[in-house]
Amino acid sequence: MRLSQFHLSTAKETPADAEIVSHQLMLRAGMLRKLAAGLYTWSPLGLRVLRRVEAVVREEMDRAGAIELLMPTIQPRELWDETGRWQKFGPQLLKIKDRKQAEYCYAPTAEEVVTDFARSELSSYKQLPVNFYQIQTKFRDEIRPRFGVMRSREFLMKDAYSFHLTPDCLEREYRNMHAAYSRIFERLGLKFRAVQADSGAIGGDASQEFHVLADSGEDAIVFSDGSQYAANLEAAEAVAPSAPRAAAGEEKRDVATPVQKTCEEVAALLGIPLQRTVKSVAVVGEQGFVLALLRGDHMVNEIKLAKVAGLGDYRLATEAEIADHLGSEPGFLGPVAPQKPITVVADRTVAAMADFVVGANRVGFHTAGVNWGRDLPEPDVVADIRNVVAGDASPCGRGRLAFARGIEVGHVFQLGQKYADAMKATVLDETGKAQTMFMGCYGIGVTRIVAAAIEQNHDAAGIVWPEPMAPWRVAICMINPKLQNAEVTAAALALQADMQAAGIDCVLDDRGLRPGQMFADMELIGIPHRVVVSERGLAAGTFEYRARRAGDNENLDREALFARLRG
Amino acid sequence: MRLSQFHLSTAKETPADAEIVSHQLMLRAGMLRKLAAGLYTWSPLGLRVLRRVEAVVREEMDRAGAIELLMPTIQPRELWDETGRWQKFGPQLLKIKDRKQAEYCYAPTAEEVVTDFARSELSSYKQLPVNFYQIQTKFRDEIRPRFGVMRSREFLMKDAYSFHLTPDCLEREYRNMHAAYSRIFERLGLKFRAVQADSGAIGGDASQEFHVLADSGEDAIVFSDGSQYAANLEAAEAVAPSAPRAAAGEEKRDVATPVQKTCEEVAALLGIPLQRTVKSVAVVGEQGFVLALLRGDHMVNEIKLAKVAGLGDYRLATEAEIADHLGSEPGFLGPVAPQKPITVVADRTVAAMADFVVGANRVGFHTAGVNWGRDLPEPDVVADIRNVVAGDASPCGRGRLAFARGIEVGHVFQLGQKYADAMKATVLDETGKAQTMFMGCYGIGVTRIVAAAIEQNHDAAGIVWPEPMAPWRVAICMINPKLQNAEVTAAALALQADMQAAGIDCVLDDRGLRPGQMFADMELIGIPHRVVVSERGLAAGTFEYRARRAGDNENLDREALFARLRG
Repeated sequence: MRLSQFHLSTAKETPADAEIVSHQLMLRAGMLRKLAAGLYTWSPLGLRVLRRVEAVVREEMDRAGAIELLMPTIQPRELWDETGRWQKFGPQLLKIKDRKQAEYCYAPTAEEVVTDFARSELSSYKQLPVNFYQIQTKFRDEIRPRFGVMRSREFLMKDAYSFHLTPDCLEREYRNMHAAYSRIFERLGLKFRAVQADSGAIGGDASQEFHVLADSGEDAIVFSDGSQYAANLEAAEAVAPSAPRAAAGEEKRDVATPVQKTCEEVAALLGIPLQRTVKSVAVVGEQGFVLALLRGDHMVNEIKLAKVAGLGDYRLATEAEIADHLGSEPGFLGPVAPQKPITVVADRTVAAMADFVVGANRVGFHTAGVNWGRDLPEPDVVADIRNVVAGDASPCGRGRLAFARGIEVGHVFQLGQKYADAMKATVLDETGKAQTMFMGCYGIGVTRIVAAAIEQNHDAAGIVWPEPMAPWRVAICMINPKLQNAEVTAAALALQADMQAAGIDCVLDDRGLRPGQMFADMELIGIPHRVVVSERGLAAGTFEYRARRAGDNENLDREALFARLRG
Repeated sequence: MRLSQFHLSTAKETPADAEIVSHQLMLRAGMLRKLAAGLYTWSPLGLRVLRRVEAVVREEMDRAGAIELLMPTIQPRELWDETGRWQKFGPQLLKIKDRKQAEYCYAPTAEEVVTDFARSELSSYKQLPVNFYQIQTKFRDEIRPRFGVMRSREFLMKDAYSFHLTPDCLEREYRNMHAAYSRIFERLGLKFRAVQADSGAIGGDASQEFHVLADSGEDAIVFSDGSQYAANLEAAEAVAPSAPRAAAGEEKRDVATPVQKTCEEVAALLGIPLQRTVKSVAVVGEQGFVLALLRGDHMVNEIKLAKVAGLGDYRLATEAEIADHLGSEPGFLGPVAPQKPITVVADRTVAAMADFVVGANRVGFHTAGVNWGRDLPEPDVVADIRNVVAGDASPCGRGRLAFARGIEVGHVFQLGQKYADAMKATVLDETGKAQTMFMGCYGIGVTRIVAAAIEQNHDAAGIVWPEPMAPWRVAICMINPKLQNAEVTAAALALQADMQAAGIDCVLDDRGLRPGQMFADMELIGIPHRVVVSERGLAAGTFEYRARRAGDNENLDREALFARLRG
């Protein structure tokens, strides 16, 4: 490709409305142009990168034995009614009426359509397992589309759906997809982490997210410094303290805390560590009033709390309910001597504490020196209901937990029989009996990978593509202002031809710009290798070479140059 | 690929609701599955074919210098309002409201969006010419989607848009695209014809359609038997008769035609050739009542008639208007002695006639022996207003016209300044003056090509793919019921590996079916070459080979087989 015959359109200024660096750089590099809120045209340059990602995803999905098909972007309401998601999906579902007033949606995902396909195409266990995938445009009507293609409304997604006779078979394909995803992100040259995700009602190990690591990532990732363990914050388990509960050492006593309501304030007043305090969260579940207890420095994890029996649909208690059960008001609540019977759910850490401080259920007072069994009954439930914090022991048993930030770009999920059940997708088993199929689903945000890669790989000069994602691996820049030197042009064209013959993906900047402009453009758009063809170099028999990441110029003769680029 | 690891799903029965052979065969071959009216899922088999077409289109567009980008499928109303097409496009435009009640449409085409892209990206003549293309999903809300993907609502289209400073430059790119399209259809192995199309308000040679020839095609194509000239019926010019008008030979006389209203009936009653009669079509245009005259055996061409000055928006006259101007009623109308002044538009053929028969403007009578100049004034307008018929002289001057049927799969069009004008898309020229750009647009129905290829290439056993479109070039069928013979399996796998090493695209049917089933499947899905691996063949050192088109079996040794498949 010669740049004079391509459409490159870079800008020096950072666009005012782009908040994150990937969005800024994609606009400055001319990869994207905004059409409307959350809708972007991919310019020729941007599309080259998107297609590279798409190609790697396709190759690895094929290699893993998945079979590509293509479902429409427009899906009929009837199928979404079968699973109840027409209502449940919420306003992200773009609903459409056609000229006959029939209702459709623009696919945000395709579980319904693929399950419909499967129930008509698959009739026998002999056709299983099978994994269908597509790389197809999706639409999610985000309330606040932003960050460019990081959170756009229309985007390209790879979605795969596998069908199985047994959960074991699903489990095997899930692992197979996990491995394929790892290969995909490795091949793309990205630093990533597969993390355990909360799998909702399905439970267990049935869901993992793939995150591209970047300081700007919007998700917190927890990982062990001593193993491969990683999870997102919702799913990371906080293990029980390894040391047993200490014996009681203090007497229970009420202390005046006239204006101190938070644990921080109480600890400061009493001159004790925050870790000696316990906070009480009052909620109402199926069986009534519940007091959830967490150590003062810990945060409740709402997803974990909702997994406690009876709290599936819990809500915060009202002040009236609190007054009724505890005879007090927020800021001074505690589990000791409630006015009416309550259920106490203690976090594992709290259950192992002794001589702690809680609210006294009396305005202006806390109770110190509290001990389980002596001052109040043992907790009704002990459970992991908090977010992990840095330094916690890893649940895998090796190492301590640390935090990183990530951008979610993939998700593998064992759906089980949820959709197949709702849509009656069955096959006949060996005995001729109809069996509901087990399903897995596996998504990759092809569009988002491009933005995430930039968040992870950039510097002050612009994008620094991992080689497999670069629009071109090599930029040949000819120092030839206004194209006045025919010898330089001829040499540059010959070098380009030789590189192409050697299978080296390159672009020739033959726009006749000044060196500074050319170099700035090639750095901005992130080309990994730059080779300069100049009058001086030709005289010396060398080419000036510079790697985008390294940053030092080297003068290489032809052989050394090709050796470098082949490597 | 091994079929045991693919998802193939063929059917023997012709689906009841599929009217045309391509739709029937695509369903029987399991290439498609209907999701809703005009919406189809492409199965893995179908998608392989679609992608082959897409790849050829992309390669040839790239080779022709066009640059690929990707525009969203969802487009904001504002841009469509700029060109007035939000209203004018009609109900095929699928209109959508998002969660904020903002209005969008699903792109049926992208002139507005690409012109918006161009007006922000292009500022100088130095950036021109440029041709942007995309291969992207489109939606047209057909009132009666039918014939499978031949007329579906959601489909894949390649749309290209070029931008130029001058009409000459546009003309060059138009020819370049014409040549690229010819290469595309040639490479796909299709019999096709580029035909002149009506170009509406733009006029001239500015629009051509590409048709795949098939007896079942819904469009009539006119071509010369003595040259390359071809046009669609709307555009094919009917030239004036070469012989001059004969002298009057008969006296004008009224003849009773009590119940004879059509030219056919009148000719039969009078015992004269239909070619001696003239039919009168009463219409109303800008300047009032017009009588359009055509020879009795000719059909009016509404597009041509609308090009006559003053008839741009013509409509048929009402019975009241006819009675008012001619004093008669339909069936007996004629240009002789109208009651009020009228405009007479004579087809070129009619203008050259003598001694002809027309309606007498008197119920129950026609007038015979009518001659121009003597019995009525020369026509106000002489124009080509009829459809050509087989045997007409070709407008190119060489040969006679004949008819064929075609399926439109491509269209190249000089848009001129229509969109650039409406949307103020300008660049600065050499002198620094803003100039409205000239545009061309170039479409290919990628989806439809698949169906059209089947309409053109099929037999009683199924599809007969042109090699470049086949899902696989070669099917290796192993005669090995229930996979009981390990030697045959091993030989088939080895043959497959050898073919792959030799770059021969093949699929191994290792499903363990009986030969009849296997062969029927491979013929139905149209694989061009079939190679049988059997116990008997292995003993003899040969493979049974059969070409899908030829139909005779040959026993070839390994060398001869590979020579055949490489050819």
